[in-house]
Amino acid sequence: MNNFNFQNPTKLIFGKGMIAQLANEIPLDKRVMITFGGGSVKTNGVYAQVTEALKKHHTVEFWGIEPNPTVETLRKAIALGKKEKVDYLLAVGGGSVIDGTKLISPGLLYEGDAWNLVLDGKLINGFVPFATVLTLPATGSEMNNGAVISSTATKEKFAFGSTFPTFSILDPEVTFSLPPRQVACGIADTFVHVMEQYMTVTGQSRLMDRWAEGVLQTLVEIAPKIKENQQDYDLMADFMLSATMALNGFIAQGVSQDWATHMIGHELTALHGLTHGASLAIIYPATLRVLREQKGDKILQYGERVWGITEGFREQRIDLAIEKTENFFRSIGLSTRLHEEKVSNDTIDEILRRFNQRSAAYGENRNVNGAVAKEILMSCL
Amino acid sequence: MNNFNFQNPTKLIFGKGMIAQLANEIPLDKRVMITFGGGSVKTNGVYAQVTEALKKHHTVEFWGIEPNPTVETLRKAIALGKKEKVDYLLAVGGGSVIDGTKLISPGLLYEGDAWNLVLDGKLINGFVPFATVLTLPATGSEMNNGAVISSTATKEKFAFGSTFPTFSILDPEVTFSLPPRQVACGIADTFVHVMEQYMTVTGQSRLMDRWAEGVLQTLVEIAPKIKENQQDYDLMADFMLSATMALNGFIAQGVSQDWATHMIGHELTALHGLTHGASLAIIYPATLRVLREQKGDKILQYGERVWGITEGFREQRIDLAIEKTENFFRSIGLSTRLHEEKVSNDTIDEILRRFNQRSAAYGENRNVNGAVAKEILMSCL
Repeated sequence: MNNFNFQNPTKLIFGKGMIAQLANEIPLDKRVMITFGGGSVKTNGVYAQVTEALKKHHTVEFWGIEPNPTVETLRKAIALGKKEKVDYLLAVGGGSVIDGTKLISPGLLYEGDAWNLVLDGKLINGFVPFATVLTLPATGSEMNNGAVISSTATKEKFAFGSTFPTFSILDPEVTFSLPPRQVACGIADTFVHVMEQYMTVTGQSRLMDRWAEGVLQTLVEIAPKIKENQQDYDLMADFMLSATMALNGFIAQGVSQDWATHMIGHELTALHGLTHGASLAIIYPATLRVLREQKGDKILQYGERVWGITEGFREQRIDLAIEKTENFFRSIGLSTRLHEEKVSNDTIDEILRRFNQRSAAYGENRNVNGAVAKEILMSCL
Repeated sequence: MNNFNFQNPTKLIFGKGMIAQLANEIPLDKRVMITFGGGSVKTNGVYAQVTEALKKHHTVEFWGIEPNPTVETLRKAIALGKKEKVDYLLAVGGGSVIDGTKLISPGLLYEGDAWNLVLDGKLINGFVPFATVLTLPATGSEMNNGAVISSTATKEKFAFGSTFPTFSILDPEVTFSLPPRQVACGIADTFVHVMEQYMTVTGQSRLMDRWAEGVLQTLVEIAPKIKENQQDYDLMADFMLSATMALNGFIAQGVSQDWATHMIGHELTALHGLTHGASLAIIYPATLRVLREQKGDKILQYGERVWGITEGFREQRIDLAIEKTENFFRSIGLSTRLHEEKVSNDTIDEILRRFNQRSAAYGENRNVNGAVAKEILMSCL
């Protein structure tokens, strides 16, 4: 096991009717800016619950944080927040609204342009406290300090380190009305988050392996049931909890991490507009195909514990584990090949160019460079 | 899944050589009281590492917090701390030293007698911040806000709610020299902590079930290996991490809990001096025997996932799962029957009297009263 530091101070407030807790969790003397995406919260009842809970608070609303939040939009939110002298932020939405708010938070205390903070975290000189009401289980952003911000001007998409939400409210009932494709992308995102922290080498931590496999086993069990009945509370509660637990550091203690698939996926999203979870469902099986030698022992363990593959020669079992992974994504309705999403060779060449330009070296062995990324992309054409 | 709140702010600093981090983690302007148990830290190198790391800090030492820490001892620590005007506490030891320090922390800010705080948590009016250096994986106290304090005068032992350590340093190498019996008791304690949060009913959370089972599977895998080689770093790291993760709230999200075995075990310790983990190894299999109807479905799931029991009729499988549990405790060298520890019927009658006196009602169904506790104790005579 590797040495590690772990800390996650976010308070999780989980369950039916919990949005009402906002009234007690945010101090009454705060000037709160509530950040939203599109208008879906107005039709699913979340907006009504939030405004009812905060009716005694001073609030200002910022609408329009888009999927893959852009610095262009967030600059407007920061300007509004500064003008209104807000000292508390509440993100109401999915990972994009939360990620965007993670830039607004330090942006409110910074005089320069917010994109500087994405490019150089050392410029951050403080955070306005923020909390979240999650509406889409997927990114885990509600319980970590990471965010991914895009720039429309430069077609770039970068991860950056912000701060943890003070608290996050997760009511599984808000997921009942999500479009099934968003649920599918959320499942894929959660699955690949786990794989990025698990699918490296064997023998680093038996306990962390079990916990990562536990999230995967849960997703494999609930995904077909969710397709049948997205209004089953306990199913959606397990999905929501899994998505949060997949990327809050709990399964990453003392183990190596990969994240190559995410880095390739971010480029696909930046260049081609593909939804994040959808990009991962395409790239991930290809990553396993290309890195099957390096990851072989762990793929065997994964195949046995998550998919029950105990028969056959080593290479057959590895084949089957990769096939089951790809089939899982297809079973929830996602594409697993680039041509299905009309991604062309031009895009692949541009990703190669970008990886080479920044001397990219991802994966647990830092060996996923431009050439390997291209190989992965060619493997899922 | 039940509604829940979760928050655990403790920073975990885990790995080889990490005790040196004390120098950076405790502000230099603090007046630190370091609390210890007996002298084992002087022979295993921990004391030397701690004092080296804190050589620039103002420190005062308090020695002699005993197993099952008593309020009689802790009053002395509180008096010393008040006299020395300490404003930071560092517990260096196992669960008993940490639990004791959890009473010293509010005790330093309270004018009355510390036992009042154990009996009535509402009297607590603040906490002196404290951190820990763990030397014995077992209780999980290094990453939760609970403690158990005894009174020698009244032969009582009660749980009480304190605050979380600011940080805890866990270096698996400090476990290499532990007496094997302490390791065995730590494994039993960890195992039963998980069971208290898991062995209730099925279907509350698939994910929490998987995570609880993951800790149990890890313990079952490492226990025989630890017996062979207690100096294997990765084994002891997994043991240490498992003990912490078993009682920091991570596996308790949204699920019912039991804790009847602990309440009976606390009485055995208070009345008979039995080590906590040793008391649990005796009581737990008996709890399963007596409550096998109520817990039947979960015992089946546990038998299948932790022990691989997939054949036989329902009652046979339940029998086998309970038998494997008892054999596991025996395999690590612990007694599983009261007569082996010379506990007599008098003790059982006294436990019955105490349970009845306080109208005890433990377990996930609040049906473990004095009569059921007696039945459990008679089942492990």
